[in-house]
Amino acid sequence: MRALPCALLALLSTAAGAASITTIPDEAVTQAIALRDAALKDKQAYEILESLTTEIGPRLAGSENDQKARDWAVARFKALGFDKVWSEPVTYPKWVRRSESAALVSPFAQKLAVTALGYSPGTPKGGITAPLVMFNSLDALKAARPEDVKGKIVFVSARMQAHKDGHDYGIGSPIRSRGPAIAAELGAAAFVLRSAGTDSHRLPHTGVTSWKPDGKRIPAAAVSNPDADLIEQALRRGQPVQLKLQLDCGMDGEYTGANVIADITGSEKPDEVVILGGHLDSWDLGTGAIDDGAGVAIGMSVGAMIGRLPQAPKRTIRVVAFANEEAGLYGGKAYAAAHKHEVAQHILGSESDFGSDRIWRLQASVKPEALPAIDRMMQVLAPLGVERGMGRGNGGPDLSPIHAEGMAALSLTNDGTRYFDYHHTADDTLDKVDPEQLAQNVAVYVTWAYMAAQADGDFGSAPGAFKQAEE
Amino acid sequence: MRALPCALLALLSTAAGAASITTIPDEAVTQAIALRDAALKDKQAYEILESLTTEIGPRLAGSENDQKARDWAVARFKALGFDKVWSEPVTYPKWVRRSESAALVSPFAQKLAVTALGYSPGTPKGGITAPLVMFNSLDALKAARPEDVKGKIVFVSARMQAHKDGHDYGIGSPIRSRGPAIAAELGAAAFVLRSAGTDSHRLPHTGVTSWKPDGKRIPAAAVSNPDADLIEQALRRGQPVQLKLQLDCGMDGEYTGANVIADITGSEKPDEVVILGGHLDSWDLGTGAIDDGAGVAIGMSVGAMIGRLPQAPKRTIRVVAFANEEAGLYGGKAYAAAHKHEVAQHILGSESDFGSDRIWRLQASVKPEALPAIDRMMQVLAPLGVERGMGRGNGGPDLSPIHAEGMAALSLTNDGTRYFDYHHTADDTLDKVDPEQLAQNVAVYVTWAYMAAQADGDFGSAPGAFKQAEE
Repeated sequence: MRALPCALLALLSTAAGAASITTIPDEAVTQAIALRDAALKDKQAYEILESLTTEIGPRLAGSENDQKARDWAVARFKALGFDKVWSEPVTYPKWVRRSESAALVSPFAQKLAVTALGYSPGTPKGGITAPLVMFNSLDALKAARPEDVKGKIVFVSARMQAHKDGHDYGIGSPIRSRGPAIAAELGAAAFVLRSAGTDSHRLPHTGVTSWKPDGKRIPAAAVSNPDADLIEQALRRGQPVQLKLQLDCGMDGEYTGANVIADITGSEKPDEVVILGGHLDSWDLGTGAIDDGAGVAIGMSVGAMIGRLPQAPKRTIRVVAFANEEAGLYGGKAYAAAHKHEVAQHILGSESDFGSDRIWRLQASVKPEALPAIDRMMQVLAPLGVERGMGRGNGGPDLSPIHAEGMAALSLTNDGTRYFDYHHTADDTLDKVDPEQLAQNVAVYVTWAYMAAQADGDFGSAPGAFKQAEE
Repeated sequence: MRALPCALLALLSTAAGAASITTIPDEAVTQAIALRDAALKDKQAYEILESLTTEIGPRLAGSENDQKARDWAVARFKALGFDKVWSEPVTYPKWVRRSESAALVSPFAQKLAVTALGYSPGTPKGGITAPLVMFNSLDALKAARPEDVKGKIVFVSARMQAHKDGHDYGIGSPIRSRGPAIAAELGAAAFVLRSAGTDSHRLPHTGVTSWKPDGKRIPAAAVSNPDADLIEQALRRGQPVQLKLQLDCGMDGEYTGANVIADITGSEKPDEVVILGGHLDSWDLGTGAIDDGAGVAIGMSVGAMIGRLPQAPKRTIRVVAFANEEAGLYGGKAYAAAHKHEVAQHILGSESDFGSDRIWRLQASVKPEALPAIDRMMQVLAPLGVERGMGRGNGGPDLSPIHAEGMAALSLTNDGTRYFDYHHTADDTLDKVDPEQLAQNVAVYVTWAYMAAQADGDFGSAPGAFKQAEE
């Protein structure tokens, strides 16, 4: 028997009354096993992903392809047998990338592979040429004296190593998202980071950066890992290093896109939904295969498989293709805002947004009485190589806002060893997706989604339900 | 005992008289072992390579960096203790790359990662937009009817797999070097190939193409492997596929560069040389670390190590940093033309130009009487993991012209498994070089070079010596 995490034990002890245990009927388990095994042989998710990445390609939020992708999603959902398909508006500030270049100017002249960060302003037309000052971590930058930074290009260089759970993104991501604002406050002319990636290719990793509402903004970009090596080698010689950065990019008003939502309507409890999905937007450098075409394709396939069963599921299976995850969870936040009054009807949810290599871990944020149902799911998932993780599950990026409102959620963790080699680069393309591992993902999602749809009893979704557990 | 290859048996049987056997004195073997073991611990080659790739970077033949690299080489050779350093002019047509882009235009709009091939003409300013016609091999293109090709963009797409000896370059290289001229003769508007590389990154592989002296020339370029996949996916839908290709590149007169040559002058037979080296030019996309900064660094280190011995070698150790190998062996041909009258004094030679991963094979083109000396070298090389290959050795690209004149030669084969992942791409950077394997390379080269310098007897170099063996 597994130990329950403390937070859940706390919940158990404070739960009012003797709530009934959530169970999965045997026939639902049998059906889930059949769905799981069929999914392993199914090529539909790969075909959907091939279609999205080939026919649409990069899907920067607010770009021409944003609309094309939504049209594609609506048509696909309908073709796959979802009986209700609709869009809900999502509004956000639009950012555009036009061109970008960088070079070492002194002591040696060399071109650098560079990419602007999302929400970076552009440089003046002739670019910015300034001395470079390097920091090895975000903390080192925070501790910098303004006089050491003022007028310079701040370069933060910290390496990420590949790990199964991708935890080194905890190094690269804060540097990218918070470093530019910190450097700006210190008076820096511009900001450059060593790509938040585990590869060693000349393909820089983009990604969004954050500004304080009225804070200073400076041009911010990432160089590829080999280019960061080169800058470090130049600095190691002890001579002043000058960098030239030329970015043509910036804000371009407001854009209203949409979450595209599709239901396989439930037969017994149509108002109760099991929700999954991915985000439809991607960065503009690659074709958004692993981030997050795969998530959309998995959700679509799972819905379609359940929709093709002779008997409709008891609860509704909902799949959301979220808008603009990349620049700040706009789609996920809009969904939560529009549906928080129905949070109790969102029985269980999980978004796929960590590529589609083999899923090896399931973590759950559910009420204690639903843990036996999670255990039942685990029995069907274990042959797929999935272990029970004892951390909490927040449902993935775009479902984390509605989970925060009280939706019970799972987190399915992919093998992230390769993920940050390609994440947010031009290399995020279809060839990085292994069809066999993608099918394993579909098998995992169809298993838990179907079992949740057929469960007797719920998983604890209620307004504010998981606040205590997460604090 | 090993079997002699037929060609050598033939040579043996036709050799006039009873030539004496070439041997390596015991003290030379002892010294070679000491040099070998010191080389494994030596970081000099890596430091030289770091300097070249950091301080100079890309070295396209005829570019500003061509001159900078030669100045660097002259200074390095002198600093490393070579007692004679000089340059010999090498003249060739100069080619320049300014900008390049490509896109799928229909049925879907997607940008493609593309690079022009060396000696490609540019497109008209607005680019060429034309329907695409695909072939799976050079033979299929050769067999095409002009009416199927005329006015179209020819796309040749053949995949290369990684192999230890890199033999699939025999697929990609002829498509790149001969495909464009064949397509031009058939009336094609332009030529695009699937990169001649084993990777799956959005970094296309450049390289030279060949034209007939008065033949038609058309814009010619390579797309990255993932982009080639995308084009194939588009074609698979059965709709017409249109491509837009925009290349600003072309010929720019004639340029006179130079081979940079440096000697550690021999004490007993200064006019007899053991020759090694690499080519100093590189393609312009990366910093030319594996192709062929490594070769230059290995040669420089070997000469420096032997030069630091208390006793000068009996024969001269010569290291050549060759000019413009990439666009057609110009440096190697110029060296052969300038030195063919001294071919008999070029005792033995080998250029390193296949990266610097572990050397696993030695092949030799020497006279039969020198095979015992090669066996003696093998005894010292075997602990480094080097096997005796029974093919012939042509001395590497830039020494093949003087080998063709009659110089005895070795070919040392690196583990080429990774080589064509990076070859001729922006990814040819220092991080792709493993310092430990580079040191093994230096150990191999210093071993044979020193033993050849000290050998009693020669290796069969003479005008026309190896013609029979190679026909």
